Amino acid sequence: MVQAGVFGATGYTGHELISLLEGHPHVEVAFGTSRAEAGHSLRDLYPQAPDLTLIHTQKARLEHVDVLFLCLPHTQSASVAAAGLAAGVRVVDLSADFRLRSPQDFQKWYGVVHPAPDLLAEAVYGLTETARDSLPAARLVANPGCYPTSALLALYPLARADALAGPVFIDAKSGVSGAGRAPKQHTHFVEVADNLSPYSVGRRHRHLPEMEQALSGWTDTQLGVVFSPHLLSVPRGLLSTIYAPLRGGWDEDRVRGEVAAVYEGEPFVELLPPEEHASLAHVNRSNRCALGVSVVNGSALLTSAIDNLVKGAAGQAVQNMNLMFGFDEGEGLR
Amino acid sequence: MVQAGVFGATGYTGHELISLLEGHPHVEVAFGTSRAEAGHSLRDLYPQAPDLTLIHTQKARLEHVDVLFLCLPHTQSASVAAAGLAAGVRVVDLSADFRLRSPQDFQKWYGVVHPAPDLLAEAVYGLTETARDSLPAARLVANPGCYPTSALLALYPLARADALAGPVFIDAKSGVSGAGRAPKQHTHFVEVADNLSPYSVGRRHRHLPEMEQALSGWTDTQLGVVFSPHLLSVPRGLLSTIYAPLRGGWDEDRVRGEVAAVYEGEPFVELLPPEEHASLAHVNRSNRCALGVSVVNGSALLTSAIDNLVKGAAGQAVQNMNLMFGFDEGEGLR
Amino acid sequence: MVQAGVFGATGYTGHELISLLEGHPHVEVAFGTSRAEAGHSLRDLYPQAPDLTLIHTQKARLEHVDVLFLCLPHTQSASVAAAGLAAGVRVVDLSADFRLRSPQDFQKWYGVVHPAPDLLAEAVYGLTETARDSLPAARLVANPGCYPTSALLALYPLARADALAGPVFIDAKSGVSGAGRAPKQHTHFVEVADNLSPYSVGRRHRHLPEMEQALSGWTDTQLGVVFSPHLLSVPRGLLSTIYAPLRGGWDEDRVRGEVAAVYEGEPFVELLPPEEHASLAHVNRSNRCALGVSVVNGSALLTSAIDNLVKGAAGQAVQNMNLMFGFDEGEGLR
Amino acid sequence: MVQAGVFGATGYTGHELISLLEGHPHVEVAFGTSRAEAGHSLRDLYPQAPDLTLIHTQKARLEHVDVLFLCLPHTQSASVAAAGLAAGVRVVDLSADFRLRSPQDFQKWYGVVHPAPDLLAEAVYGLTETARDSLPAARLVANPGCYPTSALLALYPLARADALAGPVFIDAKSGVSGAGRAPKQHTHFVEVADNLSPYSVGRRHRHLPEMEQALSGWTDTQLGVVFSPHLLSVPRGLLSTIYAPLRGGWDEDRVRGEVAAVYEGEPFVELLPPEEHASLAHVNRSNRCALGVSVVNGSALLTSAIDNLVKGAAGQAVQNMNLMFGFDEGEGLR
Repeated sequence: MVQAGVFGATGYTGHELISLLEGHPHVEVAFGTSRAEAGHSLRDLYPQAPDLTLIHTQKARLEHVDVLFLCLPHTQSASVAAAGLAAGVRVVDLSADFRLRSPQDFQKWYGVVHPAPDLLAEAVYGLTETARDSLPAARLVANPGCYPTSALLALYPLARADALAGPVFIDAKSGVSGAGRAPKQHTHFVEVADNLSPYSVGRRHRHLPEMEQALSGWTDTQLGVVFSPHLLSVPRGLLSTIYAPLRGGWDEDRVRGEVAAVYEGEPFVELLPPEEHASLAHVNRSNRCALGVSVVNGSALLTSAIDNLVKGAAGQAVQNMNLMFGFDEGEGLR
Repeated sequence: MVQAGVFGATGYTGHELISLLEGHPHVEVAFGTSRAEAGHSLRDLYPQAPDLTLIHTQKARLEHVDVLFLCLPHTQSASVAAAGLAAGVRVVDLSADFRLRSPQDFQKWYGVVHPAPDLLAEAVYGLTETARDSLPAARLVANPGCYPTSALLALYPLARADALAGPVFIDAKSGVSGAGRAPKQHTHFVEVADNLSPYSVGRRHRHLPEMEQALSGWTDTQLGVVFSPHLLSVPRGLLSTIYAPLRGGWDEDRVRGEVAAVYEGEPFVELLPPEEHASLAHVNRSNRCALGVSVVNGSALLTSAIDNLVKGAAGQAVQNMNLMFGFDEGEGLR
Repeated sequence: MVQAGVFGATGYTGHELISLLEGHPHVEVAFGTSRAEAGHSLRDLYPQAPDLTLIHTQKARLEHVDVLFLCLPHTQSASVAAAGLAAGVRVVDLSADFRLRSPQDFQKWYGVVHPAPDLLAEAVYGLTETARDSLPAARLVANPGCYPTSALLALYPLARADALAGPVFIDAKSGVSGAGRAPKQHTHFVEVADNLSPYSVGRRHRHLPEMEQALSGWTDTQLGVVFSPHLLSVPRGLLSTIYAPLRGGWDEDRVRGEVAAVYEGEPFVELLPPEEHASLAHVNRSNRCALGVSVVNGSALLTSAIDNLVKGAAGQAVQNMNLMFGFDEGEGLR
Repeated sequence: MVQAGVFGATGYTGHELISLLEGHPHVEVAFGTSRAEAGHSLRDLYPQAPDLTLIHTQKARLEHVDVLFLCLPHTQSASVAAAGLAAGVRVVDLSADFRLRSPQDFQKWYGVVHPAPDLLAEAVYGLTETARDSLPAARLVANPGCYPTSALLALYPLARADALAGPVFIDAKSGVSGAGRAPKQHTHFVEVADNLSPYSVGRRHRHLPEMEQALSGWTDTQLGVVFSPHLLSVPRGLLSTIYAPLRGGWDEDRVRGEVAAVYEGEPFVELLPPEEHASLAHVNRSNRCALGVSVVNGSALLTSAIDNLVKGAAGQAVQNMNLMFGFDEGEGLR
């Protein structure tokens, strides 16, 4: 059995991850950490969670585990990751600390000097379907953000085939769990209920550079992403509706053919039939990504739905771990 | 024009109150206070609110107003009320500070010595329909809690007629705005959405003594209230479903007749037709209380719906002020 | 592998059941029927459902299966059950057709002559925890209604110990899936959202006689149930808050002791710790029943939460089938 | 007092309209019609509605009113409008019957021959802020669709100034009341709750030609609209997020300046401050349109929020009527 340690077990991602790992036939949760809740059971916070007594971050024995999952706030993951790697433990980091390859970009977007720039070079960006070759040997995986997971899975086949003329408009809508468990004014039930709010639109959200970095690895065209996240009055689920002008010669058949070819046989990415578009109901509480693909007036109109806590976070982390350890990719995810 | 000052303008109750007062033909809002938001406009917090620049609590000039509305946390209202009365200003207190007549009870339920026990004797408990005689001359009105407003309006006619044998079971369900605007874990959207949670059930909620005190003024029977509040996944609205064994001789006709007689002509209390019961849709965003009344197996089955922010707080405060100042009772409330 | 046939596969219960059965290691779904959707895949209706091609009711080959699950409207199940039993197939009926033992009661509450009164005598009322002895040999199981499942699991230990003095007030709140999938005015999103509505309160709901029949089998005391269902603005989940005056000598310790003793070791019923009460979050999407137990002023205050589609319908049906066929009781339910 | 007749009083739009008209100081509702509910009170359907006894469509006495509001399904309005005009009554049609100027377009998008093509020429497209000159003399006003109202108010200043290079991507999200009151599978609470679904995306929704027709009246540039409506799990409110590549020379200052100039002094259109974008909370239950305007990478990023039942339907109808009859534009709308 693979022994897994989870840092930051009490957030929505940590809870989702531990619930998934508890059902995984080849993994045992060795510990879950929490600063504020050490000594309590995870079940005190989530009535259906496993009865796992949380330990303080500093009491975690890294040498007793095979893999660390880091569900910590950005900038807090890096040092734990470094310690884990030094102890010979493989790391899946669900924070943003190792997503951007350049420490300058990190500093620009996160406002602090990167805490472990030496590790950036070896971090594998774990958008599983695009990283399958690198995962078996990876020591450090940067699990993608929820918005990038959704948008990039839709854009990957077209960027890679150089079908996109740019700019790319990503209109994304996320459930509230994506904003984290710490209570804030904007996640108060009364503020969210019956509302829909755009936030950090344009080029202001931290998931933007992550998307542009990935796209630039797939195509030489400067795509110029415009990204508008919206907060939905639902607890979970994320839908990106994407408008992307195409180069000449790319009609709906060709676009659909390309997407179909790239994702043929993928266990967790489903291209929907023509004229069907992706909704949250296609994916919620699963590790699936549902893709709808149309071409209208020379532009691709793509819809991409995921559960932000599963394929957008904890599920993809397990999927990556499965490939790192040689398990079936879907183990623990069905 | 009556000049009104509002302490605690930024909470859900304060906002609702200011919105109502802005539409009132005989009242002007002279100021609204906030500790944390002084200098900002109320519109920065509520995009549809009046553009009222909030002032710090300590800058409020009590002598410039005719009436003070206190939407402060309990124990903070009392001293402001005292200062207001000393300045000759009439006070409607929406906190709990003047609801319980006995300072011992206050201390027992709120955990601190009452800050202004000398004022308790003159405070009028402002359940409007039961307090109409006292309001015109009142200097200090204790606006009832939301749960007591709902439950007591249902029980008043029967308690007063000595129809109840006891015990009284009050199963109440409230929208989340009743829990206040300060973000807490239990008001996080993700915790509330798709959930329904009982809390402080039995005899543990602070609205219990307020209900028993009022009932004891209407009947000599010791009724023994059991009270179960539940948190609903809706932003506003409050429904109490009440089960109350009746004394002999009280069948449905007699019970309905009593309720109908007591509330005949009331502008804001509506007895629903036989077999119709009250829902949030009957009352939301209005100052109405809708009452459904059945008798089953010798027990009254009462449903009483209000909007917790209107009849359960700000609306009833305006209704009380109207009577204090000799205006039409419904002014500003339609 | 046990071969299972599902009649009425397209309702919320049928869909939930097929999803559970697809994950059951010892069961195969041989067919699912639908009048309106024959020829279509279940996935056309539910995007995450198994890709099961629905067949017309009349094309179902009863002789090819070992067990039939009937998710049909009441009065339609009985004849299919009779045909199944005649073909040697065991039947779990999720409709109301075999829940009431007396054909007169059925006619009174459902308005038609019972279609198969000869089968009533052998039908086992499948409230699993109270029927475990009868299930292994049962040919015909009447799966309980969702409201009775919730209320009866709470009341069973106390009724059986003759602790209840009566009357029993059951204030129940259900998610909208309990009202079925056929679109009606009162299940329109706009009617339900932000609302809470009592309906069929008192002694008017068809689940009342089912509850009283079960209680009368456990205690000689005539309890006189008053039952108030409410429609919640959530898709699933059911909470009953129950107020039940106790006989002398039953304090909280004794009541909790009785409940604990009855459910000790039960895999799907959990007595919560003192002062903790049951919420939908305790149980949703699981087959669990969470019970909160207090005693206040001489009355039991019980909270009982289930997922109406799982423990309240499809999950309990699988639980019953597991016992009928000698499988582990929790197979397919975790 | 202007006497108003309302056809189709029981839908969400009809109900909203009658509620507004009841508060209008210069209008009386002479009648409201309903086929299915004639003889009942509107309050039987909406517990807070005015107690208006509905009459059968055929019993409406057109000659007794000054203005007709038609809240009928498309193709049913036209003949009533014709009869009204023949009787000398002015008409505000909230259906789609007179929105498209060409009977061929109507036939293409609505699948039937236009019932009253002779009236198309005189119908005024009632997007109030763009039609103020034509309304005082108008006999027949085609009240715009909810999606076009939202999108066109955002695009009008830029189209008119020839700032748009095309294509225009309109990503719109609407509350469920936009889908009408008749219960359908896709408006069932359980289908909508916690979901977000795109539908009729691309160039398939009937509001598309309405938008393109209006745009073509403001600019000679063929803009090529791509339009993606989504169904939100909220009862009301509509937000359009619009991505529109700009011609050279249009930076954010110039774009904002143009929008500000066009809407200066408008009572119901508000340009939000820089970096603030429109949410449903800005507008719900009001006749306001809130506009957020940014320029990113050479494209305008516009957000436009309305309440679909108010500014998107009944409120705009009242606003239009006010101008038709010489009342203050905001009468009855605050």
